[in-house]
Amino acid sequence: MRTIFAVLGLAFGLSALASDAAPAAFPEVPYPSGYRDWRHVKTMLIEDGHPLYASFGGIHHLYANPKAMKGYAGGRFPDGAVIVFDLLDAQAGGNAITEGARKIVGVMHKDSKKYAATGGWGFEGFAGGDPQKRAVGAAAASACFDCHAAQKAHDYVFSTPRGGE
Amino acid sequence: MRTIFAVLGLAFGLSALASDAAPAAFPEVPYPSGYRDWRHVKTMLIEDGHPLYASFGGIHHLYANPKAMKGYAGGRFPDGAVIVFDLLDAQAGGNAITEGARKIVGVMHKDSKKYAATGGWGFEGFAGGDPQKRAVGAAAASACFDCHAAQKAHDYVFSTPRGGE
Repeated sequence: MRTIFAVLGLAFGLSALASDAAPAAFPEVPYPSGYRDWRHVKTMLIEDGHPLYASFGGIHHLYANPKAMKGYAGGRFPDGAVIVFDLLDAQAGGNAITEGARKIVGVMHKDSKKYAATGGWGFEGFAGGDPQKRAVGAAAASACFDCHAAQKAHDYVFSTPRGGE
Repeated sequence: MRTIFAVLGLAFGLSALASDAAPAAFPEVPYPSGYRDWRHVKTMLIEDGHPLYASFGGIHHLYANPKAMKGYAGGRFPDGAVIVFDLLDAQAGGNAITEGARKIVGVMHKDSKKYAATGGWGFEGFAGGDPQKRAVGAAAASACFDCHAAQKAHDYVFSTPRGGE
């Protein structure tokens, strides 16, 4: 899980590079329309002091479409599987933490041919959840896949659902 | 939101009373089968020091079935609307908090006739998420509805989805 953050953090840091690029010279990852109606897989909170707090501090939820759920169950994700990392600000007060504004919508999208150069997965992050604000862009290979490659035995995915679910 | 916890906390405290009762003399609330595939509405964390920590410490998620989503959108919840309060242990470490075991599955189930005595809503809590471990039972009126009655203008529901969702 943490490795995902590290990878996304790197990608996020490279966002300026990506947005400077002219017409897309990479296979774009579509915005995951409707992901808020997908299965909520799990949630985690990154607090101040965590090494990835600057990039990923807050509450994040993982959502998976039906094809991604088949992947979690069987170990191989079919084309069309999409996993979303939905990061929200964490608002602390009164010994409780609630959700604030959206920081980024991270995406892994499986398409064996389109994203063959990165294990069959496309990687992207949409700043603030805005479909027009791509934070990874052409940097997916170096910013995301280089690390995900270590997870080849699990089809390049780090996360797993909670036990029994 | 906090009022919901207070109400559930009271109900939880009365669980011994409920389980001592012989055959159910109250309209039972069905276990919300399949709720993990419903819409994830929002999430909150209750930390040590919060007045309701003893009963509701941890990470909780709210889930709503399609009829409940219509209720959130329109203000009136149709019969068949179900809202689930899914409470998990919070595991802290390394400046991060992750999800642990399930503590209780709280339920509000709309049926105008069956639950007429409590505003058309049935209230229940399933300890550990076990459909056989009812933590509210016959105490729903005093333990839950007495407080929810204050929310009559919002069809007795406290929670609202995040802005823009």
